[in-house]
Amino acid sequence: MVKELFDKLHEECAVFGIYGNSEAAKMTYLGLYALQHRGQEGSGIVSSDGAKFHTEKGIGLVADIFTQDRLKKLPGSMAIGHNRYSTFGENTLKNVQPLIVNYARGTLALAHNGNLTNANMLRDELEAYGAIFQSSSDSEVIIHLIAHSKGDSLVDRITEALGRVRGAYSLLFLSEEGLIGVRDSYGVRPLVLGKLKESYVLASETSAFDLIEAEYIREIAPGEIVVINEKGVTSYTPFQKTPHAFCIFEHVYFAKPDSFIFGENVYAVRKRLGVELAREAPVEADVVIPVPDSGTSAALGYASGSGIPYEYGLIRNHYVGRTFIEPEQTIRHFGVKIKLNTVKEVLKGKRVIVIDDSLVRGTTSMKIVKMIRAAGAKEIHMRISSPMILSPCFYGINTPTKEELIASNHTVEDIRKFITADSLAYLSMDGLLRSAKSADPKEFCTACFTGTYPIPFPDRYRDQLFLFETKPN
Amino acid sequence: MVKELFDKLHEECAVFGIYGNSEAAKMTYLGLYALQHRGQEGSGIVSSDGAKFHTEKGIGLVADIFTQDRLKKLPGSMAIGHNRYSTFGENTLKNVQPLIVNYARGTLALAHNGNLTNANMLRDELEAYGAIFQSSSDSEVIIHLIAHSKGDSLVDRITEALGRVRGAYSLLFLSEEGLIGVRDSYGVRPLVLGKLKESYVLASETSAFDLIEAEYIREIAPGEIVVINEKGVTSYTPFQKTPHAFCIFEHVYFAKPDSFIFGENVYAVRKRLGVELAREAPVEADVVIPVPDSGTSAALGYASGSGIPYEYGLIRNHYVGRTFIEPEQTIRHFGVKIKLNTVKEVLKGKRVIVIDDSLVRGTTSMKIVKMIRAAGAKEIHMRISSPMILSPCFYGINTPTKEELIASNHTVEDIRKFITADSLAYLSMDGLLRSAKSADPKEFCTACFTGTYPIPFPDRYRDQLFLFETKPN
Amino acid sequence: MVKELFDKLHEECAVFGIYGNSEAAKMTYLGLYALQHRGQEGSGIVSSDGAKFHTEKGIGLVADIFTQDRLKKLPGSMAIGHNRYSTFGENTLKNVQPLIVNYARGTLALAHNGNLTNANMLRDELEAYGAIFQSSSDSEVIIHLIAHSKGDSLVDRITEALGRVRGAYSLLFLSEEGLIGVRDSYGVRPLVLGKLKESYVLASETSAFDLIEAEYIREIAPGEIVVINEKGVTSYTPFQKTPHAFCIFEHVYFAKPDSFIFGENVYAVRKRLGVELAREAPVEADVVIPVPDSGTSAALGYASGSGIPYEYGLIRNHYVGRTFIEPEQTIRHFGVKIKLNTVKEVLKGKRVIVIDDSLVRGTTSMKIVKMIRAAGAKEIHMRISSPMILSPCFYGINTPTKEELIASNHTVEDIRKFITADSLAYLSMDGLLRSAKSADPKEFCTACFTGTYPIPFPDRYRDQLFLFETKPN
Amino acid sequence: MVKELFDKLHEECAVFGIYGNSEAAKMTYLGLYALQHRGQEGSGIVSSDGAKFHTEKGIGLVADIFTQDRLKKLPGSMAIGHNRYSTFGENTLKNVQPLIVNYARGTLALAHNGNLTNANMLRDELEAYGAIFQSSSDSEVIIHLIAHSKGDSLVDRITEALGRVRGAYSLLFLSEEGLIGVRDSYGVRPLVLGKLKESYVLASETSAFDLIEAEYIREIAPGEIVVINEKGVTSYTPFQKTPHAFCIFEHVYFAKPDSFIFGENVYAVRKRLGVELAREAPVEADVVIPVPDSGTSAALGYASGSGIPYEYGLIRNHYVGRTFIEPEQTIRHFGVKIKLNTVKEVLKGKRVIVIDDSLVRGTTSMKIVKMIRAAGAKEIHMRISSPMILSPCFYGINTPTKEELIASNHTVEDIRKFITADSLAYLSMDGLLRSAKSADPKEFCTACFTGTYPIPFPDRYRDQLFLFETKPN
Repeated sequence: MVKELFDKLHEECAVFGIYGNSEAAKMTYLGLYALQHRGQEGSGIVSSDGAKFHTEKGIGLVADIFTQDRLKKLPGSMAIGHNRYSTFGENTLKNVQPLIVNYARGTLALAHNGNLTNANMLRDELEAYGAIFQSSSDSEVIIHLIAHSKGDSLVDRITEALGRVRGAYSLLFLSEEGLIGVRDSYGVRPLVLGKLKESYVLASETSAFDLIEAEYIREIAPGEIVVINEKGVTSYTPFQKTPHAFCIFEHVYFAKPDSFIFGENVYAVRKRLGVELAREAPVEADVVIPVPDSGTSAALGYASGSGIPYEYGLIRNHYVGRTFIEPEQTIRHFGVKIKLNTVKEVLKGKRVIVIDDSLVRGTTSMKIVKMIRAAGAKEIHMRISSPMILSPCFYGINTPTKEELIASNHTVEDIRKFITADSLAYLSMDGLLRSAKSADPKEFCTACFTGTYPIPFPDRYRDQLFLFETKPN
Repeated sequence: MVKELFDKLHEECAVFGIYGNSEAAKMTYLGLYALQHRGQEGSGIVSSDGAKFHTEKGIGLVADIFTQDRLKKLPGSMAIGHNRYSTFGENTLKNVQPLIVNYARGTLALAHNGNLTNANMLRDELEAYGAIFQSSSDSEVIIHLIAHSKGDSLVDRITEALGRVRGAYSLLFLSEEGLIGVRDSYGVRPLVLGKLKESYVLASETSAFDLIEAEYIREIAPGEIVVINEKGVTSYTPFQKTPHAFCIFEHVYFAKPDSFIFGENVYAVRKRLGVELAREAPVEADVVIPVPDSGTSAALGYASGSGIPYEYGLIRNHYVGRTFIEPEQTIRHFGVKIKLNTVKEVLKGKRVIVIDDSLVRGTTSMKIVKMIRAAGAKEIHMRISSPMILSPCFYGINTPTKEELIASNHTVEDIRKFITADSLAYLSMDGLLRSAKSADPKEFCTACFTGTYPIPFPDRYRDQLFLFETKPN
Repeated sequence: MVKELFDKLHEECAVFGIYGNSEAAKMTYLGLYALQHRGQEGSGIVSSDGAKFHTEKGIGLVADIFTQDRLKKLPGSMAIGHNRYSTFGENTLKNVQPLIVNYARGTLALAHNGNLTNANMLRDELEAYGAIFQSSSDSEVIIHLIAHSKGDSLVDRITEALGRVRGAYSLLFLSEEGLIGVRDSYGVRPLVLGKLKESYVLASETSAFDLIEAEYIREIAPGEIVVINEKGVTSYTPFQKTPHAFCIFEHVYFAKPDSFIFGENVYAVRKRLGVELAREAPVEADVVIPVPDSGTSAALGYASGSGIPYEYGLIRNHYVGRTFIEPEQTIRHFGVKIKLNTVKEVLKGKRVIVIDDSLVRGTTSMKIVKMIRAAGAKEIHMRISSPMILSPCFYGINTPTKEELIASNHTVEDIRKFITADSLAYLSMDGLLRSAKSADPKEFCTACFTGTYPIPFPDRYRDQLFLFETKPN
Repeated sequence: MVKELFDKLHEECAVFGIYGNSEAAKMTYLGLYALQHRGQEGSGIVSSDGAKFHTEKGIGLVADIFTQDRLKKLPGSMAIGHNRYSTFGENTLKNVQPLIVNYARGTLALAHNGNLTNANMLRDELEAYGAIFQSSSDSEVIIHLIAHSKGDSLVDRITEALGRVRGAYSLLFLSEEGLIGVRDSYGVRPLVLGKLKESYVLASETSAFDLIEAEYIREIAPGEIVVINEKGVTSYTPFQKTPHAFCIFEHVYFAKPDSFIFGENVYAVRKRLGVELAREAPVEADVVIPVPDSGTSAALGYASGSGIPYEYGLIRNHYVGRTFIEPEQTIRHFGVKIKLNTVKEVLKGKRVIVIDDSLVRGTTSMKIVKMIRAAGAKEIHMRISSPMILSPCFYGINTPTKEELIASNHTVEDIRKFITADSLAYLSMDGLLRSAKSADPKEFCTACFTGTYPIPFPDRYRDQLFLFETKPN
């Protein structure tokens, strides 16, 4: 509920862009494919030869949306693409990015990963001046601010527009003048630069580079604007400096294990979280099993840290579709059963440590514990490789509201009872920060675990935020 | 090429049936969902109240084919369903099972897992008598033989018809008289019986029971016919006894790890294969990694058997779709890259043991070895948790022809060179049979590894078979 | 109800075939397009180069079904096509023709215009011998009879098969050996032969020739089989001679006015029906208006015969679609209103003669009379340019059952009251036969107007037929 | 070419709106159905209960777009709808109206029939102030002008916005406050008001009222705004008075014959055009035939005026679809042949007068003359029931550019030769104006026949207009 004050849509997303490649749209398709885990609701690609712009968008998975025929309708040597997570009913296609508009200065396409915290306020203001919005997406505010800007160059106009927005953003623009990448001054979301022969690529994660065999160059720095055109890569840093606030949840859950994020490999960090967890919260047991695949890396770390054998006690169904039709006469919700099944031989009569990366509402963990119990486990010890999630994210991770976050208003013991485990432990905040070694602890955003939001809120919303709090952070 | 003498379509499939359930079609949908790994090309369900029969079929995945609307068109308290593997171009829908026909004695629907070896001969004969075939599926031969039979009861007619076919089959029939399950006298393909409250269920694997929370009762015995109707389950054993020939490849690769097959849990067998492999083919190394997910269970066994740390060096992309569009200017085929990516931190500078369940053509293994090498591995030791595949399967596993099976005409050293590994070893035949403990070694079909086919071939085809052989079996 | 004894599907249809044209499928598409008025439920084309056969079928209109892509999938220099009228719920695609089967002698495709009267009896018999039917179409019986025939040549087998069927048929076959056309010995349905450069064409009506600019050669004679292959056109007359029974309803309603049928132009016949009707049933009035477009030609004849001005008092909506959604709170059924609207200026205060070609159930005529009355007409005189329809057609026109045919159990005065007209008159039987000049009156089938069926019924059905009669014919 | 200076899209369209009906969307669907002849490219409906707004749009025909399911998604007691004519490639759905936007004052939907002549100029200006356009439709300019207006009430804002636009418009708005209808001060396009029980309806033509059985009340006056809400119908006339300019081409061709337009029935006017034409351009002949259906009413008038028999020499194919695939090896374009076929019996050896309503490019007339000649006509006399079309329409009729209008740069004799007729005559301007009796000749817009445009053009475009003229108007 609190969240609705700040945003219309939580944008947990992926962006990808390329300049100077004769197969720009196809490379973007591949990049989005490799970044599918960051957003599965819909995808879009805008391509251009610098004069004409072409758009293809759809609801669903990248591989289903982009057929050979649709890719053929995307000529040109530069392109940007976007995978989207959130869904808002029937009109979703309108909200699928990239957004593309014609305005007085030409054509502009935008792909946005992140979330603005003053979008509604800006939108109200823009509408008061007669602006007409096409979508309910935060990102459209940026476009309107650019259209209203009197700045001479596009970089000037982007700078002026972004000077007005608050929140987290890694942005890609495509215009007649080339490809532009921007990362907010806090650096909340990742954005990396690579090179594929003569072309430059920008992406949310390095796993997109691996698929197209591009070489990783560097991260886009917090507060940096890069303009990529026929002159190569030009860097601007027009924004005021702020502290860094790298989203630590990218390491905990969101990024792909094979990616290199904020200077470190995600799998390595996650495994260390498990080792750390074994040290902080040991328990005597017969087997360590992961909740696949979210807990897999940490479980392996826990097993190696504790010396308890690692086993597969839960098997994932690889063909889980979007829709699933349940029988009517069922008592239990099928939610977890269609994704996971137990291996009775592994669990029967055993003391089982179950590792997952996080615990949000608690209902899924409860179902998993019950499944394992039904398979004959003697004891079930749940271990979570991150701290308690106390507060919602306003910077682009789709967490539920405070009321729905079980840890925001329950003790560990309450939660243990709720999920029916024999014991439950979370990784400590220190343990988490120790494991993510590449940056100084102060450089991470830990708002979801601590309630300390690094980016200031606009005043008029701040009051309302605390109004809805059920306990102080 | 040889294979085409025997069959039109290799049917690597799943079957599911239920009797006496008010949500029969929905339960069948769930059962097929849980058996999706046995066939992803298309699925169908036939339901009935004993008078009218209803059919819905489609190309693709169960969850995509069956919408709420389509399931509503499947009323009745009994149903059978089928997942299909093979695909033969544009007319596939015609070949999606269950087959359903009206003949002189009423309506009959059929779902078939397995493969006949004398289908073409029987088809020629039936056509000579004026029969008109709808599909190119082997299974239709069974239907025509039943329609031509003069037997009094349906069980008589089924018995007479199956008396004429050769090959492997686990069959489900739906007729006005109820649900019928049949397993060939060799027991090549699995077929299990379960109970869900008052209703009986038949399925290819127990994982289908777990999802709908049905209780496992027993396997249908080789050569058994079970008729399920308002009188309960009636068992018939009208066929001549033959030796058993349980497909050992179900344990090696095909069945789901959480299933219980031929009297044993699949995951447990696979892990033992890895332990056995560590004993037979040890090598000094830093890490053991699986090819996910086919090699996962065996890799864990190898790691525990060898004491070498288990790691994830290859990360699977969970969103791999049916179609994938490659860039044109690429040198290397993307085949493996879109499914797997390396974790460089795990592999760099390491001596790596890679475990997979089998090695068919060798091309995939080669690509994997090259990916791991490119990620910086110092040594790469490929270990396969089954013996060399020498001969094609004629009983329902979709293996390529002899010429394409790299092991049928190359030595281990040849293959090692081809896949560019530093060493390569296969599990021995003895090791394999030792690991599958639930049955006597003689009770397994090992034709793909040995070339010894347990089910006699019709003479006229036998000669042709050897004609095409490139070396004696 | 009576009708169900004789047939499953009333096939009011069009057939088209071509041999020796490099664009055979496209020409067939055009031919079906020109014959769309004979069937709008679904269409199909089978093409061949003599070796491989290709099929495309769909539900709906020719122009919607056949895209450029689908036509490209129909290579080969010979083809047959079919438009279908009747619809039987969800499974219609199975019943869309051409039927195509593989049997012992090769491939055979069939397109059928007409209706068999002993199909059910033959089907029962064939099923007793083990035959399995794919569809509920009468026409499939012909295919099975051919498959069971031991005749040497295809013509022999067709002759043997057709020797067993009773009813009306104009048939096209496509086989490896070429294109074959057959017309039953009564000649109930039309079938014409044309020539387009080097290729030969067969069609239900000459309007198909006009569109593709083929030249009309002649009608296929009743009882004639023509085989068209690389040797040209070979004619066979193997059937026993019978009296002719040309369907006079083709002239009254079914054929297109620009076609040349049974030796005469349809528009010319229809206009004469109007002139004749003006002579037989004159009335003082201010205007003559047609029910568009069925009564248009006859109305013009009536106006010229009577000297009363011809006007358009009813305007047809050209965009009437298949589906139409009515408001719920409406009292009157919209059926006619969505197709026709009145021109008040033409009707207000006038004595109006309304001409239609036939009157089946009376409900449409009633709605038209009421619309005209509501538009201010002073008197409304309905004139029908054919006699009363007393009996259903069993030879391929989709008439309703006897009970639904208002004229089968009501007097003219009863019907006049029902449709609320000030007067009503039908053309006499003599008047009808006088107008269709090209054949001797005895050569026409007039069963729908007289109840005298020219083709004998199988005995076992005949009794049942009379059982259901509400009055003797 | 000239036209592109003035507009992006020529909007030859239909609008329909209803207020106070529990089946508002369904009634709108019916209204659009009855107005399908005014636009077949796409349709949309917006409905509302005064709070939420619902939109459904599609490409194609009304009956194909709106299924029962889609109509259910359109609740509320008020609605507006639109049929669209023009098509601009792949992005058409964006241009399908009603347009619907959220702006500072709430929600506003717009359906527009007509065409603006200063849309591009206004668009440039609005974009310079930062406005972002969604579509390439003229109509969006109106929405943006309203969004920028500071007027207190919606009527004030609409008045201010329309004060800036030039051109022809009959508009419907749907807002939280009710249904609003506007007709420009020239009254170029029709707009009529009706009543259906307690609800009010607005439509382009009265034929929409007939279908839903609404009662015709009156035309909306030129320059009138009507607001329909819970207080009933309130009329405003805020615009400066101008001369009237009723589009005479609505009577000649565009409106449906059963409609009542500008105070008169269309069929009656068209028939008088034929009578007048018979007087002005008589010729000795055997038959008068219409080009169906455009020339039908006038042909009947010509026949009655001349005493020469009226016949159907051209038969229309009622199943002409959107797409049509031609054979490749054809010499002649099939364009006309798929729509019309000749009746040889009517034409052979005859002197034929052919009547059509207008002659635009001449190519269709040429093909028709050639078809009639090929059918054996001895003489062919083309008569056109309107004057020569000299100039393009800028007010909403989709005429081609001046260069393509054959009459703008050829004499009657030139055109006669081009269409290969034996004689050709047009109706005179006086004859046309005499036939449309309901208004004073000066009250009609005759720009397409005279080049005299009644609505002043913005100066900067006027010069460019004359620049492109090939001869002075």
